Amino acid sequence: MATGKINVSVDNIFPLIKKFLYSDHEIFLRELISNATDATLKLKHMTSIGEVKVDYGNPMIEIKLDKKGKKLHIIDQGIGMTQEEVKKYINEVAFSGAEEFLDKYKEAGKDAGIIGHFGLGFYSSFMVADKVEIITKSYKEEPAVHWSCDGSPEFSLKKSKKEDRGTEIILHIADDSTEFLEENRIKELLNKYNKFMPIPIKFGTRTETLPKPEGAKEEDPAPTKEVDNIVNNPNPAWTKQPADLKDEDYKSFYRELYPMQFEEPLFHIHLNVDYPFNLTGILYFPKLTNDLNIQKDRIQLYQNQVFVTDNVEGIVPEFLTMLRGVIDSPDIPLNVSRSYLQADGAVKKIASYITRKVADKLNSLFKNNREEFEAKWNDIKIVIEYGMLSEEKFFEKADKFALYPTVDGKYYTFEEMKEALKANQTDKDDKLVVLYASDKEAQHSYIEAAKNKGYEVLLMDSPIIAHLMQKLETSKENLSFARVDADHLDNLIKKEDTQISKLSDEEKERLKTNLEEVITDKGYTIQMEAMDSNASPFIITEPEFMRRMKEMQKTGGGGMFGMGNMPEMYNLIVNTNHELVGEILNTKTAKKRERLINQSLDLARLSKGLLKGEELTNFIKRSYEMVK
Amino acid sequence: MATGKINVSVDNIFPLIKKFLYSDHEIFLRELISNATDATLKLKHMTSIGEVKVDYGNPMIEIKLDKKGKKLHIIDQGIGMTQEEVKKYINEVAFSGAEEFLDKYKEAGKDAGIIGHFGLGFYSSFMVADKVEIITKSYKEEPAVHWSCDGSPEFSLKKSKKEDRGTEIILHIADDSTEFLEENRIKELLNKYNKFMPIPIKFGTRTETLPKPEGAKEEDPAPTKEVDNIVNNPNPAWTKQPADLKDEDYKSFYRELYPMQFEEPLFHIHLNVDYPFNLTGILYFPKLTNDLNIQKDRIQLYQNQVFVTDNVEGIVPEFLTMLRGVIDSPDIPLNVSRSYLQADGAVKKIASYITRKVADKLNSLFKNNREEFEAKWNDIKIVIEYGMLSEEKFFEKADKFALYPTVDGKYYTFEEMKEALKANQTDKDDKLVVLYASDKEAQHSYIEAAKNKGYEVLLMDSPIIAHLMQKLETSKENLSFARVDADHLDNLIKKEDTQISKLSDEEKERLKTNLEEVITDKGYTIQMEAMDSNASPFIITEPEFMRRMKEMQKTGGGGMFGMGNMPEMYNLIVNTNHELVGEILNTKTAKKRERLINQSLDLARLSKGLLKGEELTNFIKRSYEMVK
Repeated sequence: MATGKINVSVDNIFPLIKKFLYSDHEIFLRELISNATDATLKLKHMTSIGEVKVDYGNPMIEIKLDKKGKKLHIIDQGIGMTQEEVKKYINEVAFSGAEEFLDKYKEAGKDAGIIGHFGLGFYSSFMVADKVEIITKSYKEEPAVHWSCDGSPEFSLKKSKKEDRGTEIILHIADDSTEFLEENRIKELLNKYNKFMPIPIKFGTRTETLPKPEGAKEEDPAPTKEVDNIVNNPNPAWTKQPADLKDEDYKSFYRELYPMQFEEPLFHIHLNVDYPFNLTGILYFPKLTNDLNIQKDRIQLYQNQVFVTDNVEGIVPEFLTMLRGVIDSPDIPLNVSRSYLQADGAVKKIASYITRKVADKLNSLFKNNREEFEAKWNDIKIVIEYGMLSEEKFFEKADKFALYPTVDGKYYTFEEMKEALKANQTDKDDKLVVLYASDKEAQHSYIEAAKNKGYEVLLMDSPIIAHLMQKLETSKENLSFARVDADHLDNLIKKEDTQISKLSDEEKERLKTNLEEVITDKGYTIQMEAMDSNASPFIITEPEFMRRMKEMQKTGGGGMFGMGNMPEMYNLIVNTNHELVGEILNTKTAKKRERLINQSLDLARLSKGLLKGEELTNFIKRSYEMVK
Repeated sequence: MATGKINVSVDNIFPLIKKFLYSDHEIFLRELISNATDATLKLKHMTSIGEVKVDYGNPMIEIKLDKKGKKLHIIDQGIGMTQEEVKKYINEVAFSGAEEFLDKYKEAGKDAGIIGHFGLGFYSSFMVADKVEIITKSYKEEPAVHWSCDGSPEFSLKKSKKEDRGTEIILHIADDSTEFLEENRIKELLNKYNKFMPIPIKFGTRTETLPKPEGAKEEDPAPTKEVDNIVNNPNPAWTKQPADLKDEDYKSFYRELYPMQFEEPLFHIHLNVDYPFNLTGILYFPKLTNDLNIQKDRIQLYQNQVFVTDNVEGIVPEFLTMLRGVIDSPDIPLNVSRSYLQADGAVKKIASYITRKVADKLNSLFKNNREEFEAKWNDIKIVIEYGMLSEEKFFEKADKFALYPTVDGKYYTFEEMKEALKANQTDKDDKLVVLYASDKEAQHSYIEAAKNKGYEVLLMDSPIIAHLMQKLETSKENLSFARVDADHLDNLIKKEDTQISKLSDEEKERLKTNLEEVITDKGYTIQMEAMDSNASPFIITEPEFMRRMKEMQKTGGGGMFGMGNMPEMYNLIVNTNHELVGEILNTKTAKKRERLINQSLDLARLSKGLLKGEELTNFIKRSYEMVK
């Protein structure tokens, strides 16, 4: 048996980096600016603990584009490197400089916010450059160094005349990557990855107009001056304490995050926790519209102010992915599969923390300003209802503040609704029957009929409401929901008392025969009911169970398999106490009776939205005749 | 100045692989099975060219799970490795074995289908295993070798007693990766990545029922036998020649690809090209439904029968991403950014090849079986119309076969439509006016009116149709589209002849005043027209331009900014030649006149679908009164 050491052939490490290390070449700039930020923050940390006696000043990072020379410069005023350090950190690939630094300074205090993968990140430059130079001067009293490498493993190292502290990286952009010589492309990258990094980043200059000197003439042009163009906000709102921020600050940060969003957010939730994991951030409830661009502005994930991704699937509970905002955490593992993420303990805790914070915020909004909460309900209900369906813990909390609006604009919590309805809408089996409409306009006549009986009608019009009703019916006791057009009201809420029918059983039989002769082929089940004589003569209803199952199937997950393809089923309820129905019964000529039945049926179908196309056109023609 | 060689510190290469090489750990199995496939195909190639005189046989790859021992075995019967080769291919990371092999055998003939990144792919095992063993015996007359490594750079190498040719990899699964010891997880991975790999893959056994022996009694159980459970189809349809496949073969391959799809595809397109790039595949036009799962079954991208991704954005033109099927090409660069992909010359050529093939297939379907093409139009139109809007080349081709159905179920091509309509629907300015409806039911009375004048009405009901009409109007000459309810027909298609009005100008003035008194606050613009006395007395219209702009804005891209929020605008057209209108004019009592006007207006609104909610309920109540 032999043993040996695996030999990593260095001639092949560069193609490997180029091909496999990152699938997205553009991140080289994020990596280099992260390194520059590290180098600056290290200096800040060391001066703050007194390890180094230099002036920290107000350092910035400069990005310089030299399109003609095909070069991109990244210049920092950070800690710099001595020749020894270049040999150690640059010439030894995969040596984690930041790790060693952290080890050394761990005892000196809390994590000073070092991002931390110098060395490896640097080599991503070779994805876009065929030659890279480093000119660097350490904060230590040592001469500056000039390192250069053309992508082969051979490097050269010499002294440099650089006088000021810090590091300059020069990328000689390769021919297949000239996109990174375009000013707009660099701007785009800076805006995507570096918008909120903690050190100011300069890219070019801009012209600023100064106030005119005293005594200047009207026609004199105002003096101008070239100033540094800083592309980032080093102190974004989420890094501050909630106590230091006003409502306006949150709103303006929202505009900073989503410059193309003209609508203001409804409210925000500031996240801030450091045990058992580290997480800061601000989430916003947007006004959800039917805008097709809705999915484009998503929650952004940062790691110590460096943008990572806007795909937070697996980190944020699904029902909250409709929100917007920022989450910043060093504790979320990034380079792992989504299925691993979902099983990761830390990530699970983060998700449940976020869920809890959102529920608490909603609860406090509800308690502190119910009127405003009610006004916003229509815009936030989908998120809340979806959360109630998908997260049991959220359901428990939301049960206190989820609202059930009526068609008249009242808003009940579940308990309030039970209290308000129980006297009038408890049926003879002690079950509370909650009547609802899904469309105030389309179901108007049915709503009116229910109101005339003194019943309350809820307006439940979310796309997933059928699922929520199903859940409420199974998790609460003695409760059922019924749409106002599901049946005759006396059947929906069955009570002991029965209406007296004006017609005898024999007359009812005869009427039914009359009706069936005319409308039997139209597929309605005829149902005789003794109703109020002021109610409509004919009413078309659609049984709750079937309709709801079909709806649930349409919106996915639930319902009964195959129901989606079943035809719609309707009942025709005939009010035996209505004058017109009596007239139908007493009409002697078959032709006149047929006309009465057909016109009444058409009106009932119109009321349920079922009279369409040619039938409607014919109905209208007939009606014009009747107007004359 | 000094020069030197960058030293890749090998102590750190394993964490690097683990962390950065692949973001998705699960692909280790794909990599190892790819290697096993390579090793087998290499042997096949060498025996076929006579380089090696061994029996190729019917080799398979076996995956064996040892949950108790926490081990996963990948066993092949391929070329194997000698001790020298293990040292060369395994101990030297990033050495591309396949590349060298290809160089050597290039002259021996055409690419024999070698996938090709042995060495590097192997090391992905360390993402999930803390110890890896290789037991391998070469086809050469040399003893077998047993290599083993625990993730540190130290390996051990000894002789092995393995007798049969081939390689066995043994992964000792790490504690953080126990998911890969679950049978179902491995099944899932095999199904995702290896379903169509070219060498049979065995995973466990299954029981097969054999025919009963002759003379067996009724009650005797049928004999059974354990057979290898082969999880893949090594010869998927797309690797075969179109001439060797029947329609049923394509359909059964579709079911193989999408076992959860119960609907059959409408038709398929077999892609097969080897110059200037290599691409095979089969695309299917699915029946697009409103099913929410629609986006889940997407086109799958393979590289030499190894699944790569089902995100083909950037490779397939956007309008074709609604299709399903398989694309297999070694020429698509995988580890690059999407923005790079879109700029890549080879990828652009692939996209335009696919577009052309799809257009050609549609054209031949149209020509060879127009009846069937018409029957399928409703299911494929969105893809075609979207393609016409987004790809100019596709527009040119599709102009020959894109269909324009009428409300009566006739189907015209654009040229046929022009021919059929020009006699009757060319206006006095020589412009062809194409009338259309977006909803046969809702616009029924308007369609009837147009048909009564002998006009054809198209049915244009795709969500993006407004954009396509806009494009047609600008790219064709003297053409305009108008929805049937956009105006009075004589205004939509203006001709020289004018209808004579029964009313004098003075009477019209008086009528207008009467009408305005009653309906002025309802926001209609009143327009007097001398129409056929059989036409409706009142008609409500909605001007084309405004409505179309609003529709275009709703479906994104196009339309005029801000129009989406404008209120709807309607005109009320009064037919001065209708009897009822005359009656309104001659009614002396204001109250009766008001009733006539209101009932007529309600009927006109009903016809346009504008009578809703409380107004509809009141209309119905009034109408029940009139029935009595």
